[in-house]
Amino acid sequence: MHIIHTIAEMRSWRKQAKRVALVPTMGNLHEGHLSLVRTAKAYADSVVVSIFVNRIQFGAGEDFDKYPRTLEQDAEKLKAAGADAVFAPDESELYPNGVQSYFVEPPAIQNELCGRSRPGHFRGVATIVTKLFNIVQPDVACFGKKDYQQLAVIKGMVQDLNMNVEIIPVEIERAQTGLALSSRNGYLSAQEQVQAAQLFAQLQNIADAIKLGNTNFSALENSAATYLQQNGWQVDYIEIRQAQMLAKAQISDKNLVILAAAILGTTRLIDNIEVNLSH
Amino acid sequence: MHIIHTIAEMRSWRKQAKRVALVPTMGNLHEGHLSLVRTAKAYADSVVVSIFVNRIQFGAGEDFDKYPRTLEQDAEKLKAAGADAVFAPDESELYPNGVQSYFVEPPAIQNELCGRSRPGHFRGVATIVTKLFNIVQPDVACFGKKDYQQLAVIKGMVQDLNMNVEIIPVEIERAQTGLALSSRNGYLSAQEQVQAAQLFAQLQNIADAIKLGNTNFSALENSAATYLQQNGWQVDYIEIRQAQMLAKAQISDKNLVILAAAILGTTRLIDNIEVNLSH
Repeated sequence: MHIIHTIAEMRSWRKQAKRVALVPTMGNLHEGHLSLVRTAKAYADSVVVSIFVNRIQFGAGEDFDKYPRTLEQDAEKLKAAGADAVFAPDESELYPNGVQSYFVEPPAIQNELCGRSRPGHFRGVATIVTKLFNIVQPDVACFGKKDYQQLAVIKGMVQDLNMNVEIIPVEIERAQTGLALSSRNGYLSAQEQVQAAQLFAQLQNIADAIKLGNTNFSALENSAATYLQQNGWQVDYIEIRQAQMLAKAQISDKNLVILAAAILGTTRLIDNIEVNLSH
Repeated sequence: MHIIHTIAEMRSWRKQAKRVALVPTMGNLHEGHLSLVRTAKAYADSVVVSIFVNRIQFGAGEDFDKYPRTLEQDAEKLKAAGADAVFAPDESELYPNGVQSYFVEPPAIQNELCGRSRPGHFRGVATIVTKLFNIVQPDVACFGKKDYQQLAVIKGMVQDLNMNVEIIPVEIERAQTGLALSSRNGYLSAQEQVQAAQLFAQLQNIADAIKLGNTNFSALENSAATYLQQNGWQVDYIEIRQAQMLAKAQISDKNLVILAAAILGTTRLIDNIEVNLSH
């Protein structure tokens, strides 16, 4: 497995590769990332995993500085999972002027859901993903459904800017408790790890109710939020949306997603669950 | 020469081509465009010329509707100039939803010079060029120095977003009077065609003065603007800038460009001249 640190070396490696899949990550890898790598292998001859903690998608006061940098352990996991190359550039390689001047600006969805409390986050994501696509020139790229809004923004961007890459959504990996795997779970205490499963449990409750014909979406959202608040969570949002582009869900919609973000202790967690009523 | 109307056909043509140069245009081609094509041929095995009147770079009240569409004549000229393919998509092909939702947003330079009177113009240019790059995937792309600010925005974008394409700047083609060739010259009356040469003459005066050691940039700018106003022009701007990224020129700068935009009758003309003091 090649470990690549410069854009020049990445481009040169790309030239000799055939069909390439990219898995963009910020490192600190867990089973969810490795599932992306295994999926990617099915779509391409070579899998590149990028590891880059991307400053421009973090807001002021967010965890950019304390975000774990664990390249050595990450590389071992990726080698075992069958990745062919790791692209781990320094900040000076991707932001040689210290700042990014040109941004890929997503539409209004960037200011909803997670975007409400993270202004500029999805612009930062869209911009770094564009840069990585331009450097790696992958045929396909795998994104986890865990970051569902991110996936929707990237799918929209690829379509709207005519990027020549196929986006593969990959299912969420969960702990036995139901807790979605996340790098940020490492911030949770042992007790919080157990309690954190309440988030997915509430999403499941809403999904079950919808499948049973309950169409009072706002009551379902509010009831889940109230439960979490009573259990010590600070709820950012719980919303039922259309699955494709995350527009507000109508009662007639068949493809839904229930998305949530909530803070437990000092750790902000997100999760979601898709509900398909068409079969 | 292939005339291509769809993205799918363009991508399929691209696959069989080797090194490709792209010349993006809005059609209504003149000798300036053909000079871009001839330059492009020196850099690649195949030259693609795109022809697309790009709605999102026109402001309200600008000439989008009356901009000349002359595909048949354009194709004849391009064939004679040795282009290999013309990419002339319909609006519904590039804007299938009727609108563009994701934009490539340039930095503050987009609001200076021509950007002051054309808000959103350079964002529209950066976005359509990104789309064309993603569709055609050229190795090089040729842009005329006539649209000097556009060239600077595109160069900055390619560098900042790590696009894998080399930008080739091409010299301005001029009529015998000195008037820079432009599709919009067709809007001028015969008398205005003659008078229009005053714009370049004033730029030359400033360039000559700077070469002779005059460093009072604002006096030079004002004197040229006054001359044009006295001759019936409405001056948008005349400015001396650093050539590379169009920052305000300092007396110590060696690579300068003098840029102007002015309206004659109802026609807005732009021109510029580079001044290199380092030799």
